[in-house]
Amino acid sequence: MEKKREDILQDLDIKAKEIRRKLIETVSKNGGHLSSNLGIVELTLCLHESFDIEKDKILFDVGHQGYVHKLLTGRDKNFDTLRKRHGIGPFMDPKESNYDPFISGHAGTALSAGSGIAMGNPDSKVVIVVGDAAISNGHSIEALNNIGGNKLKNVIVILNDNDMSIGKNVGSLSKFFGKFLVSEKYMNLRDDIKGIIKKIKIAEGFSNTLERMEVSVKNFFLPLSILESLGFTFFGVLDGHNCDELLTTFEKIKNVEGPIFIHVKTQKGKGYKYAEEDQEKFHGISPFDIKTGSIPKNSSSYSSIFGNEIVKFAKEDKDIFAICCGMVKGTGLKEFFEKFPERAIDTGIAEGHAVTFAGGLAREKRKPYVAIYSTFIQRAFSQLIHDISLQKLPVRFIIDRAGIVGEDGKTHNGLYDIAMFLTVPNYTVIAPTTSKELKEALEITRNFESGPIVIRIPREIEFNIENDTKFELGKWKELKKGKNNLFIATGSMLKEILNIEEQLKARGIEGTIVSAASIKPLDETYLLDAANKYDNIFVLEEAYIKNSFGSSIMDFYNDRGINKLIYKIGINQGNIPHGNRGELLEEFGLRGENLIKRIEDKIDAGKK
Amino acid sequence: MEKKREDILQDLDIKAKEIRRKLIETVSKNGGHLSSNLGIVELTLCLHESFDIEKDKILFDVGHQGYVHKLLTGRDKNFDTLRKRHGIGPFMDPKESNYDPFISGHAGTALSAGSGIAMGNPDSKVVIVVGDAAISNGHSIEALNNIGGNKLKNVIVILNDNDMSIGKNVGSLSKFFGKFLVSEKYMNLRDDIKGIIKKIKIAEGFSNTLERMEVSVKNFFLPLSILESLGFTFFGVLDGHNCDELLTTFEKIKNVEGPIFIHVKTQKGKGYKYAEEDQEKFHGISPFDIKTGSIPKNSSSYSSIFGNEIVKFAKEDKDIFAICCGMVKGTGLKEFFEKFPERAIDTGIAEGHAVTFAGGLAREKRKPYVAIYSTFIQRAFSQLIHDISLQKLPVRFIIDRAGIVGEDGKTHNGLYDIAMFLTVPNYTVIAPTTSKELKEALEITRNFESGPIVIRIPREIEFNIENDTKFELGKWKELKKGKNNLFIATGSMLKEILNIEEQLKARGIEGTIVSAASIKPLDETYLLDAANKYDNIFVLEEAYIKNSFGSSIMDFYNDRGINKLIYKIGINQGNIPHGNRGELLEEFGLRGENLIKRIEDKIDAGKK
Repeated sequence: MEKKREDILQDLDIKAKEIRRKLIETVSKNGGHLSSNLGIVELTLCLHESFDIEKDKILFDVGHQGYVHKLLTGRDKNFDTLRKRHGIGPFMDPKESNYDPFISGHAGTALSAGSGIAMGNPDSKVVIVVGDAAISNGHSIEALNNIGGNKLKNVIVILNDNDMSIGKNVGSLSKFFGKFLVSEKYMNLRDDIKGIIKKIKIAEGFSNTLERMEVSVKNFFLPLSILESLGFTFFGVLDGHNCDELLTTFEKIKNVEGPIFIHVKTQKGKGYKYAEEDQEKFHGISPFDIKTGSIPKNSSSYSSIFGNEIVKFAKEDKDIFAICCGMVKGTGLKEFFEKFPERAIDTGIAEGHAVTFAGGLAREKRKPYVAIYSTFIQRAFSQLIHDISLQKLPVRFIIDRAGIVGEDGKTHNGLYDIAMFLTVPNYTVIAPTTSKELKEALEITRNFESGPIVIRIPREIEFNIENDTKFELGKWKELKKGKNNLFIATGSMLKEILNIEEQLKARGIEGTIVSAASIKPLDETYLLDAANKYDNIFVLEEAYIKNSFGSSIMDFYNDRGINKLIYKIGINQGNIPHGNRGELLEEFGLRGENLIKRIEDKIDAGKK
Repeated sequence: MEKKREDILQDLDIKAKEIRRKLIETVSKNGGHLSSNLGIVELTLCLHESFDIEKDKILFDVGHQGYVHKLLTGRDKNFDTLRKRHGIGPFMDPKESNYDPFISGHAGTALSAGSGIAMGNPDSKVVIVVGDAAISNGHSIEALNNIGGNKLKNVIVILNDNDMSIGKNVGSLSKFFGKFLVSEKYMNLRDDIKGIIKKIKIAEGFSNTLERMEVSVKNFFLPLSILESLGFTFFGVLDGHNCDELLTTFEKIKNVEGPIFIHVKTQKGKGYKYAEEDQEKFHGISPFDIKTGSIPKNSSSYSSIFGNEIVKFAKEDKDIFAICCGMVKGTGLKEFFEKFPERAIDTGIAEGHAVTFAGGLAREKRKPYVAIYSTFIQRAFSQLIHDISLQKLPVRFIIDRAGIVGEDGKTHNGLYDIAMFLTVPNYTVIAPTTSKELKEALEITRNFESGPIVIRIPREIEFNIENDTKFELGKWKELKKGKNNLFIATGSMLKEILNIEEQLKARGIEGTIVSAASIKPLDETYLLDAANKYDNIFVLEEAYIKNSFGSSIMDFYNDRGINKLIYKIGINQGNIPHGNRGELLEEFGLRGENLIKRIEDKIDAGKK
């Protein structure tokens, strides 16, 4: 006998409470995405209740809203390992579970992936849950366009509208999706006008005109929403916390030919007071105190140093603009946005647009700073070539979270930015090795007009060394002198090599340590001088090892006919998992004992 | 005294005729974009008439619709040099003229660039002309979103709706923009309904209800179009060949606060019979006979070989899908699209979406082939990392127009694809050196399931050599044996080195010539064996020299502790201009005498 709706609802209610408790408990300990997941509890429960999870596919865009789905697909037992090394991952991943049909960590990709899955597997329903920030991303729109164009009958798109992206909704398109056309007001209005016409007809006297009007209204109102004109059948707006309403709709659409678009309103942070009150803070959060909602104060990060400096610059120079893509807080730009709103542009999740837009500003002699995470600048590679490099436009790029990001894992590591900027001509590239150098490099960017300039910064807190001299482009600093080995360290790796210096010495390895923040231009004088001085030249960088800093030094020697092996120490694989950043640096040979071992091995191999 | 409107219109009419004559004459000789330019004659004339070209900015998206603008900004005298080396360029370029505010060659970038310019220069009006294919590109939507969001008052967007992108409009969003919401039907309907309400009111009896209804209708109808809800004031639909109508509107909007969106209908090919009849053929065309509209038959291109092979595959294997981004004909897929429409997907100008979509198909064990020009795959770099590489999905990529493209110039050269696919893990990369190898490589891709696989092909016609053995992954072919020098040639460069073999010998340079289609994996056995056999190792490739094939061979030796200089012969700069492909190959040292000279110089330098 089938369960009664009442019983089902009661069960779901109990489960929802249980899940919320688990979410709050786990994220308070491990950090992670809290508010979006608290908001999507009932929606996910009802999707699992209504769809055949063994056959149908559910995709969560970005994937940070997928915790509940994880809890419902066998990952509840070890959910306390969330975001830890070898534990449950931060986003969706088929390697983690067969119930995750496709990887997702970047916004806007799930509709594209889901539409491919739907076309490849027409017998399964494909449910794609997208947030209100990601739906206005160009990638999503292109996918919606093609889902409609290809009439994919088995696609169900669910807009999880929690009225807030990371930070706040930007631009007007998300408003369009989130509020206007599919708002309750719109739905009521639609009914209203239909009702009015009916009334008028009953009163008679205008039959012909009204007949015609009704047809017009029908033709006119149906495709009112862009979604309907794109070929979607639209349902909504549903209360995303009302299981009865959700289940009823999901049952109803089973017999409706797709593509279907369902607009669901949810409340971010639902069920946890502090998260309801400050949704942004609890979007992606580090461990916090459940009772007070407070998080321990962090030391000054590289991002915040940038944030402070650019505010100083902007006070003195009205040509300075700051641009980011949905990450106002994460990139350290919060104060700039508050103080200079007319020169602060958050494009939302629209990296390609942001880069070309900055190009337009630079064309008009303004000084745009684009602050963006390394993993997301990948989305603007073409614009970096076509719009910036070809015109040598002086746009300033602050590439944040460059290198290993830690708990956000494989989709979020910043492994390729150096390679990108070295592959394409005309970029000046700096990876400051200390906080002081970051400030000095930023100072240089202010009036740097000869082309685009890039500063890459790691997810690290302040680091400084004693008696550090001033940063100069194309000039490296010899910090320690030694024989046999030369260690050229850029960015975060200077700290790492300094930290193991004594241990290396203890094992009989000495050498010169060079601080090399200037990735391009290289310090050519230094390199030419060093070629014959050392048995072994090591290049240390926190980036995927192919086509990066080490390669450019190899290139330099090769092109000048200097035959010299280069020991490249970087990240050897593209797939660096989630976990504690420090531990990952160690595990993948960029810190401590494993770094020592890599150096030792290279020296041993060289001796053979 | 101001000229009378009548006289102005007469002048414009004369100018339009003159311009059309010049367009047809020049493109018939030089090749180029004809139909879009014939369609935009009056629109461009009227923009120049109405706006202050010395102060205001006009941007043309993609730029292939900018010929008329070029003719009106001092480039008429040497317009017969269109697309020739040192002649007038194919797209917009500030290097060519101060009247081109920003480079454009890729679709979808002008709205972003224009919005940056508008924010940076609030005193100028910024007019951005976008075609109906490019407006539904994600990049454009993101920009529209931000133009609205930032309320850029000086922006005027003109949709040049010629009802046809390259090929045909795809997906439903362009329909939405081009036809539905802003169609005449819609405009009429809007007036109709307003009229009806008025009528009803006059007849009285329903005043309250109708009062309310009128408010509803007003609130309701105003933001009907997505554009209006995005914050644009909408004008249209204008007849793009009616100068009176265009001038009137342009005058009117001078006092309207922007952002403004004007929908203009134009006829592609207008004024030249053959171009009106076959707009697609005359979109981008090689030289043709004005009288008959016919073009000389071409020899079989690499693109068409791919097109033929995939049709054969698809007949035998129902899992094969073909995906392209607006370039059905250019990529050789026309026949496939005709024969297998249910497995043929043209995403329109949406490269990121196309790649992730293909990933979804691959996830469901289908066999997707993404055919895309090298310059456009740059737009999907992030998806190649995040969606394909991280999941090692077996998507097949046919990278067309790889290398120097010729007349399409600097924005269209395919210089970075090898670097991209070598920078990111998990890609197998092939650059066939002959037509026969292309077919054999394609055969391998059919059941290649261990990861993504890439075939790069140049803009070349068939090339074959005698007694060519079968292509194998990771295996190179020694075609000629000689002493001292080793020439490793991939892709198009095999032909080039074979062509100068005798001349090199005549100058005392002999060597072994290796055909190296397998870029990744390398032929490691061959390389290890060759290291000590030759004084000089040359690597020849038609790609930007940084981080490409030659670098990967350098890497290979370096990582194995083999100290060996590599002479990399490729393209030394990112900015290769337009001109005849063959001549450019020569000029930039990849063909003939200059290639010989590069080889000689390297050998001489090595002797020092």
